[in-house]
Amino acid sequence: MAEADTRAPEPETEDEVVGLPASLVRAVEEALEEGEAEKVSELISELHPADMADLLESLSPVQRAELLGQIGQTLDPEVLSYLDSDLREDVSETLGAKEIARVLKRLESDDALEFFEDLSEELRTQVLARVPVTIRRLLQEGLEYPEDSAGRLMQREVVVVPAIWTVGETIDYMRSHKKQMERDFYDLYVVDPRYRPIGKIPLSRVLRNKRHVPIMDLLDEGVRSVPVTMDQDDVAYLFKQYSLLSAPVVDTAERLVGVVTIDDIVHVVEEETEDDLLKLGGVTETNVYSAVLETTKSRFTWLLVNLGTAVLASLVIGIFEATLQQAVALAILLPIVASMGGNAGTQTVTVAVRALALKQLSGGASQRFITKELLVGVANGFLFAGLVGLVAWIWFGNPLIGVVIALAMIINMAAAGLFGTLIPITLEKLNIDPAVASSVFLTTVTDVVGFFAFLGLAALILL
Amino acid sequence: MAEADTRAPEPETEDEVVGLPASLVRAVEEALEEGEAEKVSELISELHPADMADLLESLSPVQRAELLGQIGQTLDPEVLSYLDSDLREDVSETLGAKEIARVLKRLESDDALEFFEDLSEELRTQVLARVPVTIRRLLQEGLEYPEDSAGRLMQREVVVVPAIWTVGETIDYMRSHKKQMERDFYDLYVVDPRYRPIGKIPLSRVLRNKRHVPIMDLLDEGVRSVPVTMDQDDVAYLFKQYSLLSAPVVDTAERLVGVVTIDDIVHVVEEETEDDLLKLGGVTETNVYSAVLETTKSRFTWLLVNLGTAVLASLVIGIFEATLQQAVALAILLPIVASMGGNAGTQTVTVAVRALALKQLSGGASQRFITKELLVGVANGFLFAGLVGLVAWIWFGNPLIGVVIALAMIINMAAAGLFGTLIPITLEKLNIDPAVASSVFLTTVTDVVGFFAFLGLAALILL
Repeated sequence: MAEADTRAPEPETEDEVVGLPASLVRAVEEALEEGEAEKVSELISELHPADMADLLESLSPVQRAELLGQIGQTLDPEVLSYLDSDLREDVSETLGAKEIARVLKRLESDDALEFFEDLSEELRTQVLARVPVTIRRLLQEGLEYPEDSAGRLMQREVVVVPAIWTVGETIDYMRSHKKQMERDFYDLYVVDPRYRPIGKIPLSRVLRNKRHVPIMDLLDEGVRSVPVTMDQDDVAYLFKQYSLLSAPVVDTAERLVGVVTIDDIVHVVEEETEDDLLKLGGVTETNVYSAVLETTKSRFTWLLVNLGTAVLASLVIGIFEATLQQAVALAILLPIVASMGGNAGTQTVTVAVRALALKQLSGGASQRFITKELLVGVANGFLFAGLVGLVAWIWFGNPLIGVVIALAMIINMAAAGLFGTLIPITLEKLNIDPAVASSVFLTTVTDVVGFFAFLGLAALILL
Repeated sequence: MAEADTRAPEPETEDEVVGLPASLVRAVEEALEEGEAEKVSELISELHPADMADLLESLSPVQRAELLGQIGQTLDPEVLSYLDSDLREDVSETLGAKEIARVLKRLESDDALEFFEDLSEELRTQVLARVPVTIRRLLQEGLEYPEDSAGRLMQREVVVVPAIWTVGETIDYMRSHKKQMERDFYDLYVVDPRYRPIGKIPLSRVLRNKRHVPIMDLLDEGVRSVPVTMDQDDVAYLFKQYSLLSAPVVDTAERLVGVVTIDDIVHVVEEETEDDLLKLGGVTETNVYSAVLETTKSRFTWLLVNLGTAVLASLVIGIFEATLQQAVALAILLPIVASMGGNAGTQTVTVAVRALALKQLSGGASQRFITKELLVGVANGFLFAGLVGLVAWIWFGNPLIGVVIALAMIINMAAAGLFGTLIPITLEKLNIDPAVASSVFLTTVTDVVGFFAFLGLAALILL
C-alpha cells in the first residue's frame, strides 16, 4: 500500500502529509517532558479532533495522563468518538463520570452509544445518573440490542414525514422545526400510519421540485429495511452489494426505529477485512496499545495449538528415525519440503478465506475453485520438483535424493492446493470461522503429508 | 466473521438470506443446461443488478456466454458497474463495442470511467467513436489521471453555486435546472470567481432555512480539498480519519474539478485492507476467476523466493551435519524450533503491518511497540521453553536435549518479536511495502536463528 511520507520534517513537504505529522508528535512529547504547558497548548490548539485522538494514542500512558490532566475540561467531545476503543477505558477513567456525562450529551446518538458501551459497569451506572432522561433511555435501549448489531450502529435521529404531504409542506415543516433538527442529514423517510417505512426521499429531490408536488411522487420505493438485530457484517454486506447510502432499521413489528448510514459502514467494512487478516496471522488482539501480559496471553493459545501440530510433524519424522540414521542428508532437506508445502497452502487458504467472505463460492463455483487450486498446486509442484530435485542432486551428488525430493514436492503441493480449499470450505459449512482455523489444519496436513512422502519414498528408493 | 446461512434451501428461511441465494444459482445452472430459456428469464427477472452481476460471476465461462447471449440487449447497464473487474474483459468481449457504448451513456461518470478503463485498447477506440462527444471527453480526461488516483474515483457532476446567493435563489435555480441535475446529490459546493472551492453546504441546511438567508451563512468552511492526483489510499485515509462524507477534488490550479463521495471510498477501504491480507498470504492475484496458468505463474515467484530462504535454512543445518550424525534425535525436533519461531514472528508481523497501514507507529509509539513485542516474544519464549523442554526430555529420555531446545526456543522467540517489528518498520522507511516483503525476511531470520541456536547449543552441550 502506498503510504504518504509522514516522516518528512521539512515544512515545504508538509502539504503532502496525510494525517497527524510525526514531527508534531515528537514536539508534543518533548514539550510534555520539559513541562512546558504553554508550548503544548500551542502545538495542539489547531488539531482536528481525529488528529488529537491519534496524538493521545501515540503517547505513552504517563504522557497521556499528563496531557489529559492539562487539557481537562476543554477536551472536545469529538475526540472521544475518534479514540481507539482500547484506549477509551484508560481515558474515561482519567476523565471521570461527570466529565463523561458532559461529553455524551454533546455526541450524536450512535457515537454516544459507541463510547458508552466501552465503559466499565461501574462508570456506566454513574454516568447514567448524570445524563438527561432522554439520553439515558437511548443509551439503555441501545445496550439491549446485541453487540455488533444494526441496533448498535444506527442513528436514532431520523426525519420522518407523512405520505400525504407536498414539497411545500415538507419545507415549511423543516423550517419551523429547525431547532430539533440541528444535525445534517441526507434522506427523508416516509412511513405508513403504523410507522413502517414506505420509502425514502433524497433531499436533492425535494429541492428540485415545486412546492405543489406531492412527496410521494419523489419516493424511492422498495428500500431495503434492516432488522435491528442483524449482524453488522451482514448490514455492511447489504451496503456494499447494493451500493446503499442509508437504510432504515426496523424492529420486529417492522416499525422504523433508526437509520444506518454509509459512514458507519466504512469502519465495519475495514474491521471485517482486518479481522480476517489478523486471524489468518494467528492474532486475536486488534491493536498495538494492549499491555505485554495481555498480548502474551492472547497469542499463547494460538502458539500452543501450533506446538501440537509441530509435535505431530515431529512424530512423523520419528517414525523414520532408522532411515534418517542411514542418510542424515535427509534431515537437511526436511525444512524445504515443509516450507514449500506450507507456503503454497497458505496462498490457497488466503484466497479461499477472502472468496468465502465475499460469498463468491456458491453453486458450481465452489467445485471449479477446488479443481483450479488442485491444478495450480500440481503445476507449481512439477516446476519446483524439477528445481529442487536438481539442487538436491548437485548438493549431495546423488540423483536418487533428487528423485525422492522431487516426487515428495509434487505430492505435497498437490495436497496444499486440495486441502487449502477443502479445509476452509468445510469449516465454513460447519459454521466455524475459516479465517481462524484453516491455517492450523493446513500446515498440519502439509507437514504430515510432506514428511511422510519424503521420508517414506526415501526408505523405499534410497535404502 | 459471522455469515448468514446462504445454503438453506427452505423458503421459510429465505428472508434470512443476505445477497444472492445459492439455490437460485443452482436453478439457473440447471435451466441453462437443459436449454430452458423461458425458465431462465423467469428466474432472473426480479434480480437486483448487483445480484445479477454475482450470478454471472458464479457461472462457468460457457454458461456465462450462454446467459449473456440470451439476455442480449436487455442487459441492465448497472450490472456491468457491479461486475468484478476481471470478468469485465470477458463480458465486454461478448457484448461488443456498440452495446458497450449504449451502456456507458447510461452510467454515472465515475462508474462509466471505471468500466471503460478495464477495456482492451482496441475496444476503447471502437467505443470512443460511438459515444457522444461530452462522454468521450470525460472518458479521455479521466484516463489521463494516474491509476488509482482521486481523478479516477471522482464524480464529475458537482452542483456549484456562487457565494452571493440566498437560500431562495438556490432553490429557484435547482427547480429551473431540474433536467440537468437528474441524479441525487447531498452537498452543494460554493466556489470563488476562480472556481476554487470555498466550502460546502449540506442540503439539509438549505431546506431548514428561510428564503432570505444568505447561503454563506450555512457554509462549512475549511473543507479539505483533495488533489486530483492523490492516491486513492490516501483519499480513503482522509475520509476515515476525519469522518468525511464527501470531498472536493481540485486540479493543480486549485480549481474544483469533481467530488469524491464516501460510497466510492467503501470499496477502496476494503480493497486496501484486502491487499494487505493477500500480500501477507503471499498472493498477488486478487480473485478466484483468473485462469490456472495465470494463477500458477503469479504464485510461482513468491514460492521461488521462499525456496531460496528454505535452502538457506537447510545450509545452516548442513553446517551441523556432524552433530546430526551423532544425535539423529535432533533432526526430529527441528520442525518444532522452526515452526514456533515462524508462527510467533508471523503474529508480530501481522500486527505491525496493520499498525503501519493505520499510521499508528509515529513518534515514540514505534520504540514502545518494538520493546513490547520483544518482551512478548521473551515471555512466550520462556513459557514454551518449559513446555517443549519437558516434552523433549520425556520423549528422548535425556534432560540435556530438553535444555538445548528450551534455550533455543527462548532465543528464537525473542528474535521473532524483535525482527517481526524491526523488519516491517525498516521496509516502510525504505518505501518498500511491508505487507509484501516482511514474511520472507522474517521466516528466514527465525529459521536461521532457530537452527543455529538449536544445533549450535546441541554441539556445545550434548556432544
